[in-house]
Amino acid sequence: MSIPLSADMVGYIAACLTTTAFIPQAWLTWRRKRAEGVSLGMYLILVSGVLMWLLYGLMLGALPVIIANIVTLVLASFILIMKLLYK
Amino acid sequence: MSIPLSADMVGYIAACLTTTAFIPQAWLTWRRKRAEGVSLGMYLILVSGVLMWLLYGLMLGALPVIIANIVTLVLASFILIMKLLYK
Repeated sequence: MSIPLSADMVGYIAACLTTTAFIPQAWLTWRRKRAEGVSLGMYLILVSGVLMWLLYGLMLGALPVIIANIVTLVLASFILIMKLLYK
Repeated sequence: MSIPLSADMVGYIAACLTTTAFIPQAWLTWRRKRAEGVSLGMYLILVSGVLMWLLYGLMLGALPVIIANIVTLVLASFILIMKLLYK
């Protein structure tokens, strides 16, 4: 399968954005020490989904998928743990 | 490129999970009519990233990527609009 460079670049930009998006949420929740507006269901499903994406990346040996999902997994797990602790 | 069925299935499950994850957050924010614990930065970056994933899917003609990102775009935009309205 040959992917044009431009599509690849769009994919990398997309991966960077959807990964870094969780940094401001992690920071906001950490700073407020409150997480009542953050959905437990969202972060439970999200962490499960990101674990599946990580498995998918490992099965295909796709390094960008692996790296992006390890970063998202750390950030989403951090938000999930804060949600559980700040109840 | 040949992808084994099992990896494809893992990818579809992953896509379903990371897409549906936003439903409980949209519902929680809608029900509370408050969004002070939701990060504006997160949803601004996320919506931009999902738009880039959608463009990536369109460039590759990858229907599962297109569908998953249209659904996520609708949900994430809904949360972003609530964040802006409930200030």
